[in-house]
Amino acid sequence: MTLLNAFYAQSGGVTSVINASACGVIETARRHGDRIGQVFAGRNGILGALAEDLIDTGLESAEAIAALRTTPSGAFGSCRYKLKSLEKNRREYERLIEVFKAHGIGYFFYNGGGDSADTCFKMSQLSQSMGYALQAIHVPKTIDNDLPLTDCCPGFGSVAKYVAVSALEASFDVRSMAATSTKVFVLEVMGRHAGWIAAAGGLIESQGIPVVILFPEIPFDRPAFIARVDALVKQHGYCTVVVSEGCHHPDGTFLAEQGSKDAFGHAQLGGAAPVVAQMVKEALGHKFHWAVADYLQRAARHIASATDVRQAYELGQRAVELALEGRNAVMPTIERTADEPYAYRIGVAPLDQVANTEKFMPRDFISADGFGISDKCRRYLLPLIQGEDYPAYAGGLPVYVSLKNQAVAKKLPAFEIV
Amino acid sequence: MTLLNAFYAQSGGVTSVINASACGVIETARRHGDRIGQVFAGRNGILGALAEDLIDTGLESAEAIAALRTTPSGAFGSCRYKLKSLEKNRREYERLIEVFKAHGIGYFFYNGGGDSADTCFKMSQLSQSMGYALQAIHVPKTIDNDLPLTDCCPGFGSVAKYVAVSALEASFDVRSMAATSTKVFVLEVMGRHAGWIAAAGGLIESQGIPVVILFPEIPFDRPAFIARVDALVKQHGYCTVVVSEGCHHPDGTFLAEQGSKDAFGHAQLGGAAPVVAQMVKEALGHKFHWAVADYLQRAARHIASATDVRQAYELGQRAVELALEGRNAVMPTIERTADEPYAYRIGVAPLDQVANTEKFMPRDFISADGFGISDKCRRYLLPLIQGEDYPAYAGGLPVYVSLKNQAVAKKLPAFEIV
Repeated sequence: MTLLNAFYAQSGGVTSVINASACGVIETARRHGDRIGQVFAGRNGILGALAEDLIDTGLESAEAIAALRTTPSGAFGSCRYKLKSLEKNRREYERLIEVFKAHGIGYFFYNGGGDSADTCFKMSQLSQSMGYALQAIHVPKTIDNDLPLTDCCPGFGSVAKYVAVSALEASFDVRSMAATSTKVFVLEVMGRHAGWIAAAGGLIESQGIPVVILFPEIPFDRPAFIARVDALVKQHGYCTVVVSEGCHHPDGTFLAEQGSKDAFGHAQLGGAAPVVAQMVKEALGHKFHWAVADYLQRAARHIASATDVRQAYELGQRAVELALEGRNAVMPTIERTADEPYAYRIGVAPLDQVANTEKFMPRDFISADGFGISDKCRRYLLPLIQGEDYPAYAGGLPVYVSLKNQAVAKKLPAFEIV
Repeated sequence: MTLLNAFYAQSGGVTSVINASACGVIETARRHGDRIGQVFAGRNGILGALAEDLIDTGLESAEAIAALRTTPSGAFGSCRYKLKSLEKNRREYERLIEVFKAHGIGYFFYNGGGDSADTCFKMSQLSQSMGYALQAIHVPKTIDNDLPLTDCCPGFGSVAKYVAVSALEASFDVRSMAATSTKVFVLEVMGRHAGWIAAAGGLIESQGIPVVILFPEIPFDRPAFIARVDALVKQHGYCTVVVSEGCHHPDGTFLAEQGSKDAFGHAQLGGAAPVVAQMVKEALGHKFHWAVADYLQRAARHIASATDVRQAYELGQRAVELALEGRNAVMPTIERTADEPYAYRIGVAPLDQVANTEKFMPRDFISADGFGISDKCRRYLLPLIQGEDYPAYAGGLPVYVSLKNQAVAKKLPAFEIV
C-alpha cells in the first residue's frame, strides 16, 4: 500500500515562530514514516498548491529542518491570498483537490490565522463531497492573538516579549534624558483590530515605568490622554506611550489618518506614533522621540519567548498526531490550566467554530481609565513571555536557515489563478 | 592624609553600554580604596556638578554596581548641555571647580562624546590655571562612532549588532511575503552626520540579502536609488533599504524634510523611512513596510555586542588607572591590532586632539555605487558585533538595575544655571 503524503503551507503575515510549527509538523511526520510518505510544502503558501508549485521537504537535511525552530519568517514563503467562497470560486477548491490527488496527498496542514482556518474547513468539506479522503488540520498562528478557542496563538508571545523588552529599554533611556531632553517616548506596535500586542507594553508598569497604552478597543480620547501624560510626566519626569496601529478616533478613523498631505498632495506617510508624539508636543511642549517597530517586532526571533517557541512546535507536532488519529477539520489549541506556575495542555477545537471569528481584548483586561492593563490581563500575559530561546550565532549574527526549497515535478496542466 | 574623591558623569545621548563604563570606573575605584576616596556621580550629567547635586555611589551595593554592566541607559541620568566656551561663560567652569573643591574631588571622569571631551579638556586647563589639582579623564561613548583617535566608540558595536540583526530578521520576513505582498522594507537608523550605524545594515549582504544603504555621506540620488531597488527586486523578488536619518539631498536638506504639512498646517511628522518607502511605491508600485528604530536601537541591551560591553567596561577601568598613573587631559582608546582574529589594546589619546572632531565614514568604506559597504568596511565592522552578552531575566523581562541615587549633602550656595 502506498503511503499518503502530507501538504504543509504557511499563510498570511509570518512570525518569529511559524517555522517552529513547520519544524514540529515535518519532524513529527518524519518520525511516522511508516504512515506518512513525503511532506510537501506550498511555495508561498496556498498559491503553491494552486500553481502545483510544491516544495520537496524530503530534500532538506534533519539539521536544516531542526534549524527551522530558531529561524523567523516563513521558510517556504507565505502569501496574502484568501480563497473566495465555495460558491464564488469552486474551481479553486477543486484545483487544490486535483493537485492533492495528483501528488497522493491525504493530509493537509494549514498554518495560519482565521482566514486559513476557514479555507482549511472548506477543504475538508469539499473533499468529503468529492469523495476524496483528505484530513485537513489547521495549525494556529497569528501575532494578533485573535483566534477563538485557544488560550493564545503562536507568534503572539514572542511579539509581546519583544514589545515589553523594547519598551522597558527605551523607557530607561528616556528616564536618563528627561532632565534636559526627551520626556515622552512613543512606540507604535501592530494590532489593527485587537490590542493584545499593545497590552504587552503594560507589563513594564510593574517595574515602575510610567506607561500609557492606546488600545484599538478604546476610542481615542485626546483630552483624557493628554491629561494622563501630563500627570505622569509631572510625577515621574517622563513617560512612555505604547500605541496600537489600530487606535482610532470615536468616529472610527485611525489616528494615523490625519488627512494630511505632503507638498505633492500625497496622503501622509506616517503612522500613529508620530501623530501621538506631535499631539503631546503641541499640548504640553515636551520633547519627544518615537519609534515604529513594524516587521522588527514579528521577526524578532533573537528575543523570542521560549514558551511561544515551545507551543508553536508542539501545535505543529500535535497537528500531525491528530491527523494520524483520524481527526479532520480540527485545530490543536492551547488550554491553560494554571496561571502561576503556568501550566497548559494541548486541546483540540473543531474548525467550524474557529473560522472567521476574532477575539478582542476583554474589557476587564483593560484598566478602568482605558490607558493600562488590569491585573487579570497581567496574569494572562506574563506566562506567555517567559523564557528566552536564543538562536545560535556565528560572526555576530544569528544563524538562520534558508532551505533549498526544490520544486517537485509537476504532473498537471497549468492553472490560471484569478 | 585625606584621600581625593572622584566625580563621574554621563553626557549626551545614552547607550546600552555606557553603564558598563560606569561599572568599570566605580569597580576599579573601589579596588583602589587606598588611593581614591568616594566616587560621586553627577545627577543628570554635568548639570549635577553645576547644581551640586552629587550622587553618593558608595551607598550602592557591589551587586547593584555590578548590575550596571548589563543595564542600558544612563543610571545617574545624562543631559544634553554643552558648556559654553571659557571666554563666554567662565563662571560655569569656575563653579565646577568650586564644587569639586568643596567635595574633595581630585579625579574627574567624564563619559561622553566630542562635546564632553572638549569640556573635560577645558576643565583640566582651567584647574591648572586656578592652581587646583584636578585630573580630568574622558571616557569615550557614542553610538555615532565619530570620535577620532580611537578605532571605535563604546555604544556603537551594540547598535551595529542591533541594526544588523534586526535588518536580517525583517529581510527574512519580507522575503516570505514578497510573492503577494510586501516587496520593499525600509529601516531608518540613527546617524545624523556619519553613516557608521547605517553601514551595519550592509553586514547582512553576506547572508544573501539584497540591501541598499543610504548614507549621510552620499548625497541622495533618487533615480540611481530607484534603479538600484528595481534591479534588486527584479533579481531577488524583494529588497531591504537601510536609511540613515541623516541622509540628505544634494542641496543639504534631509530626506525627512519634505516640506509637507498636515491638515492643520504643521510640518510633517515622519522620518526618512516613510519618505523613502513612498518614493519606491510611486516609482515602482511595490508594496512596502517601514520601521523607525529610534531609541530602541541604542537602548537594546538585550542584544548588545559582547565586544562592545567588554570594551566599555575596560575603558572605564583604564580611565581610573590612567588617573592613578598621574595622567591628565587624556582619553583611553581602542587600538585595533588585528582584524581576524580580532585583537586590540587600550591606548591613550591627548584630549586636545579629540575635542570637537568628527570622524566620518572613509569613502573607501562605501561601495563604488554609494549604496553598500566595501570589504574594508566589513572587516572593520564584523569584530565589533561579535559575541552576545545577555542580561539576566526574571519573569520574562531583563533584570535592569535602578540605583538608589541618594544625594550627597550640599555644602555650597545654590548656583543659577543660565
